[in-house]
Amino acid sequence: MAEALSVTSGELKPVSVPLCPLAMASNPEKELLCIFGTGDLGRSLGQRLLQTGYKVVYGSRRPHSCGPLPQGAQVLSHEAAARSTSLIFICVHREHYGFLETLAPQLKGKVLVDLSNNLKKDIYPDTNGEYLQRLVPGAGVVKGLNTLSAWALQNGPLAGKQVYLCGDSGEAKQAVTEMATRLGLSVLDKGCLSAARELEDFPLQLFPAWRLPLCLAVCLTAFFFFYLLIRDVVYAYVEQDKDISFRIMVSLANKVFPIVSLIMLSLCYLPGVLASFIQFYRGTKYSRFPNWLDRWLLCRKQIGLLALGFAFLHVIYTFVIPIRYAVRHKLISRVVDEMKNNKTTPFDFDNTEAWATDSFFALGILGFFLYVLLGLSSLPSVGGALSWREFTFIQSKLGHLTLVICTAHGYIYGWNKFLRLSTYKWWTPPGYMLCLVVPSVVLVLKLLLLLPCVDRSLTRIRQGWERSEPGGGSGETRATEL
Amino acid sequence: MAEALSVTSGELKPVSVPLCPLAMASNPEKELLCIFGTGDLGRSLGQRLLQTGYKVVYGSRRPHSCGPLPQGAQVLSHEAAARSTSLIFICVHREHYGFLETLAPQLKGKVLVDLSNNLKKDIYPDTNGEYLQRLVPGAGVVKGLNTLSAWALQNGPLAGKQVYLCGDSGEAKQAVTEMATRLGLSVLDKGCLSAARELEDFPLQLFPAWRLPLCLAVCLTAFFFFYLLIRDVVYAYVEQDKDISFRIMVSLANKVFPIVSLIMLSLCYLPGVLASFIQFYRGTKYSRFPNWLDRWLLCRKQIGLLALGFAFLHVIYTFVIPIRYAVRHKLISRVVDEMKNNKTTPFDFDNTEAWATDSFFALGILGFFLYVLLGLSSLPSVGGALSWREFTFIQSKLGHLTLVICTAHGYIYGWNKFLRLSTYKWWTPPGYMLCLVVPSVVLVLKLLLLLPCVDRSLTRIRQGWERSEPGGGSGETRATEL
Amino acid sequence: MAEALSVTSGELKPVSVPLCPLAMASNPEKELLCIFGTGDLGRSLGQRLLQTGYKVVYGSRRPHSCGPLPQGAQVLSHEAAARSTSLIFICVHREHYGFLETLAPQLKGKVLVDLSNNLKKDIYPDTNGEYLQRLVPGAGVVKGLNTLSAWALQNGPLAGKQVYLCGDSGEAKQAVTEMATRLGLSVLDKGCLSAARELEDFPLQLFPAWRLPLCLAVCLTAFFFFYLLIRDVVYAYVEQDKDISFRIMVSLANKVFPIVSLIMLSLCYLPGVLASFIQFYRGTKYSRFPNWLDRWLLCRKQIGLLALGFAFLHVIYTFVIPIRYAVRHKLISRVVDEMKNNKTTPFDFDNTEAWATDSFFALGILGFFLYVLLGLSSLPSVGGALSWREFTFIQSKLGHLTLVICTAHGYIYGWNKFLRLSTYKWWTPPGYMLCLVVPSVVLVLKLLLLLPCVDRSLTRIRQGWERSEPGGGSGETRATEL
Repeated sequence: MAEALSVTSGELKPVSVPLCPLAMASNPEKELLCIFGTGDLGRSLGQRLLQTGYKVVYGSRRPHSCGPLPQGAQVLSHEAAARSTSLIFICVHREHYGFLETLAPQLKGKVLVDLSNNLKKDIYPDTNGEYLQRLVPGAGVVKGLNTLSAWALQNGPLAGKQVYLCGDSGEAKQAVTEMATRLGLSVLDKGCLSAARELEDFPLQLFPAWRLPLCLAVCLTAFFFFYLLIRDVVYAYVEQDKDISFRIMVSLANKVFPIVSLIMLSLCYLPGVLASFIQFYRGTKYSRFPNWLDRWLLCRKQIGLLALGFAFLHVIYTFVIPIRYAVRHKLISRVVDEMKNNKTTPFDFDNTEAWATDSFFALGILGFFLYVLLGLSSLPSVGGALSWREFTFIQSKLGHLTLVICTAHGYIYGWNKFLRLSTYKWWTPPGYMLCLVVPSVVLVLKLLLLLPCVDRSLTRIRQGWERSEPGGGSGETRATEL
Repeated sequence: MAEALSVTSGELKPVSVPLCPLAMASNPEKELLCIFGTGDLGRSLGQRLLQTGYKVVYGSRRPHSCGPLPQGAQVLSHEAAARSTSLIFICVHREHYGFLETLAPQLKGKVLVDLSNNLKKDIYPDTNGEYLQRLVPGAGVVKGLNTLSAWALQNGPLAGKQVYLCGDSGEAKQAVTEMATRLGLSVLDKGCLSAARELEDFPLQLFPAWRLPLCLAVCLTAFFFFYLLIRDVVYAYVEQDKDISFRIMVSLANKVFPIVSLIMLSLCYLPGVLASFIQFYRGTKYSRFPNWLDRWLLCRKQIGLLALGFAFLHVIYTFVIPIRYAVRHKLISRVVDEMKNNKTTPFDFDNTEAWATDSFFALGILGFFLYVLLGLSSLPSVGGALSWREFTFIQSKLGHLTLVICTAHGYIYGWNKFLRLSTYKWWTPPGYMLCLVVPSVVLVLKLLLLLPCVDRSLTRIRQGWERSEPGGGSGETRATEL
Repeated sequence: MAEALSVTSGELKPVSVPLCPLAMASNPEKELLCIFGTGDLGRSLGQRLLQTGYKVVYGSRRPHSCGPLPQGAQVLSHEAAARSTSLIFICVHREHYGFLETLAPQLKGKVLVDLSNNLKKDIYPDTNGEYLQRLVPGAGVVKGLNTLSAWALQNGPLAGKQVYLCGDSGEAKQAVTEMATRLGLSVLDKGCLSAARELEDFPLQLFPAWRLPLCLAVCLTAFFFFYLLIRDVVYAYVEQDKDISFRIMVSLANKVFPIVSLIMLSLCYLPGVLASFIQFYRGTKYSRFPNWLDRWLLCRKQIGLLALGFAFLHVIYTFVIPIRYAVRHKLISRVVDEMKNNKTTPFDFDNTEAWATDSFFALGILGFFLYVLLGLSSLPSVGGALSWREFTFIQSKLGHLTLVICTAHGYIYGWNKFLRLSTYKWWTPPGYMLCLVVPSVVLVLKLLLLLPCVDRSLTRIRQGWERSEPGGGSGETRATEL
């Protein structure tokens, strides 16, 4: 498979396998790879390579005292190890690359895979990969696979995992790609060695795709928290001289969470609607969207999952209501009050109220159920088992249905309150009104897109058709392609 | 690996890679594949192929104005592209296959992979694959990989994904299989090109395995909804002149959901029990089950997951009970009633009632917990990590335990009601009684199967033993095999 | 790819494929593999091999009456099948290996893959693999792939699945490894054939990693159940002559579950803290931990998931509280009591109490939310998509945060009770006090580890640095490796 790795096995003694030395030695076709460094990464990598059917030799400064190594691997001095094979993994900290300069003659023409990572960004002027190439100019340095950790190599399957590499030598990259493919990895070539900066920054990232959605969630939560704090707690304290600060922990949180959840859910579907309008306006699907829209489209999944998180919190907060001290106290004092004052008003059962609250709950439950379904289909293993049409059906049809139901849940909540003046404390609208703006806009826009004439145009545009410009029929050609 | 794809690279100029032209050009072993069509699918496919280590050349009607293509790919005219390689992907809509007829001489002896899909079923008399073969009789047409969407090619790993192909030329299929295997796909050969109909219908399916279970769920839900609507709401209106229609939203739903859930759960285990009885009766495991049982056995997972969905809804509806307006109103008016009339009955604490309701809740909670465990083990990534014995343990042992607990939950609900005449409004049994029939039958049948004598026979039958027919000892031979 | 499998196809007639015989026959490069045994496993394995591009021939005692086989496979007598290929899968029960002895001449030099499993451990003095090797000494017996079930072969992708093999012939193992790799499996060589015992015990294991954590959970649950049963129910019966046994079902369970959950969660983080202290004390990361700590570290995931299960039960039990008969009864009788005796005490709203209970609930909800996040990141498909830094962040940072929040949840529960004498019934501390001991210890130890001086040392030790022993600077060498 990997002809480029012709092993110069002249110098190498037969690999000493503890248990069945004869049998293994009789199998001369296995390729030999070399690993410099016997740390966690070196050992885990060696074990994987042995499992995949390679022979492995370690290069070590002290071949006779380098701790436990995978069964079946051999240890030699750096020099001897370098001479025995054509592909060498460098599993050593950059600080200690110095010794490689002295090995330059032995490393000439070899493929060096630099797997090193730094602890922080930008602590060195040049990247580890370029530094290594400068030290050993005669070797083909390939920077890559550095997203593989010792932990990932020891646990679980590598199959299908995407790794990156870069380097100036095409042959060297080819050799590494073949080795990585045999390990089950999926390799993406990032170009010349100058791309090493990007590769070395990968493992230092912490949830990069979540940064924007998390920012958004925190901002929305903070805004609505303070808005409602002022409207509810501060207002009661100032105007009615009541201390209801205890409400912050549960009541207020249980107002903020559903509001943020609904807004996030609608923000998850807004960019798709905007993109459709842009396509419809431009009459083609081949021109790029503005950058902000591209970024927004790419983090829809994260926005949706955060919305689900907030909905989950909202649901649990709601279930806790009846066991709260304040709620029980209110219930008891209300009864006692009624009895003492002999009022009978509350005992008239209000059928409309019963319908409204029960519908409110039923819609909320249904919405949450669909929310959970959407979340489940976002699990890599579930989503991966769906066909494209099924995934679209769930994320688009079910998604918009969820938005409709949750928005209706919000509308019913305030169905009889928005006309009362007392709702507008200090002339501010209540939170649930604010939170209904974005979803309502999204739903109206989506409805416009579903109008037959718009829908027909859009379907044609998405199949590759382009609205004919005055210039000519270039739309025709495009429309031929899948 | 793929010797069949000997590249006739005579005409091809070195692929122009923007960044490191020299290095890449020096690597002559990479195989060259051709893609006709520069649409979404063509571009995504090309990118994957490039990542996997192939060289890619696009054939385009207008090689100089075909929009952004993956870095590293070359664009030629259809003719030049066709001549340069032996395997060509056709990523063009069927409507535009016409130009291929004019290319027939260049395409002679080449492998053509037809990835096209139609928008609807049966809009053309013949399949796209057969149409293509008719246009280019000299080529080896392979229909297949058409379940891969541009979206799947761009996102996530292909590793292990099952794809289908068919075609009349074994060599052509072999070449495509090798290419697909290198992409990490798992290929299933569906036979001759006449199977193209089946393959082209695949991507148009929408949850085919869920159709039957969903139908079942909808029918059961509708039946019990109207049954309970009549027994509860209509009965109260007609006989007692009370309007309790508001109960439809929550109370009624919360009766229908657990009923459907329990019936679906038992229907999930009934076919297995029936299959055992058929095996026991026939005395062999080698004769096929009737078709209806086969279909039923195949959709047990979906039935079980729907049952879990209904159980989930039931649980949430239950938690919402104490915050409902109607429930609070009832509680308050009951207290006030008591006080005014100085009744003391309800204040005698009934220990049996407390035990019964608490056991009822505890069983329900435990049942739901097991339900969720069963659902989690149905996740592809979780189930895939289990050994066969572990999977059987969870799905069979835990599954039947769940059924026992949920059935007990149902029995306790009506433990003291089934003897009261008032339970049988209009001489109809209440819903929970109806829903206990199927689970009870399943459990009794399962108990019969667990009788030592039956169990011993069945175990032997499942190990391959056959009850000796008068004719002879053919059972012996069979029993040797795993 | 697998040159070792040079097919001696002299004797073999062209494989008869029902539909397109000519096309397939024209493809002579496919390798031929042989399967002895046409049971479930044999058929499923054959189908997979056919799909992967192999030709398959079955060896059967009765080639003309062996039931349905995968399309495209051929059936011959054992003798003819054995002669036609160099690699033979033995899919026959050990009890029927006898016939292989008579085939010994034909099997000489062939590779025999023994996939058999036994129904129980230790029912035969030697392993199936060794028995087979004794029967056919001239063949290269490879024991392995026996963790693949017929079910796994038929369903879902094999990609990346780890399988084991062992055998005395290196060449034979190499041939099987290449075949398995082509099936997408990841092969681990366990050494000589004497390792067959271990391999044959694998499929008989039932959740081996869960045994210890489950034991722990059962013990803790039993202890706290009886402890609280005595303190609550027995105490009330003996001292106050009240029968509150009904509380066992819900109230008692809802005390035991959170206690066990919190202790399990802290036991999940205790070994990591202990390991850090050992590393700090020894001044190196290269010496092995004691065995008990190694085992403990390895089952942290299972302990954590069990803790999540108990927390889930606790949450549902809590939500059920307000609809319990006993709770409603207490609420009503309390109101009536108040009214009759004209007491007004409970109607003074206690602001501190409201803050405390609401904070208690809020912390519990937040803790559960984080618990669920931790559980989700344990799903193979989710965890696999995380980088090492992200996984560490979730499991370590979020994990400890969860522990802090849940411990605080426990402390607030008893904030004003621990000073009252009535809390210590029969001089025993209440359950929640006992359960706070372990988490508090873990958190204090963790805080010690976060002290700047300790933290700095530990970070260096983990990077490979060793505290310099009197003997010399061996620390330096180690520190070079990743």
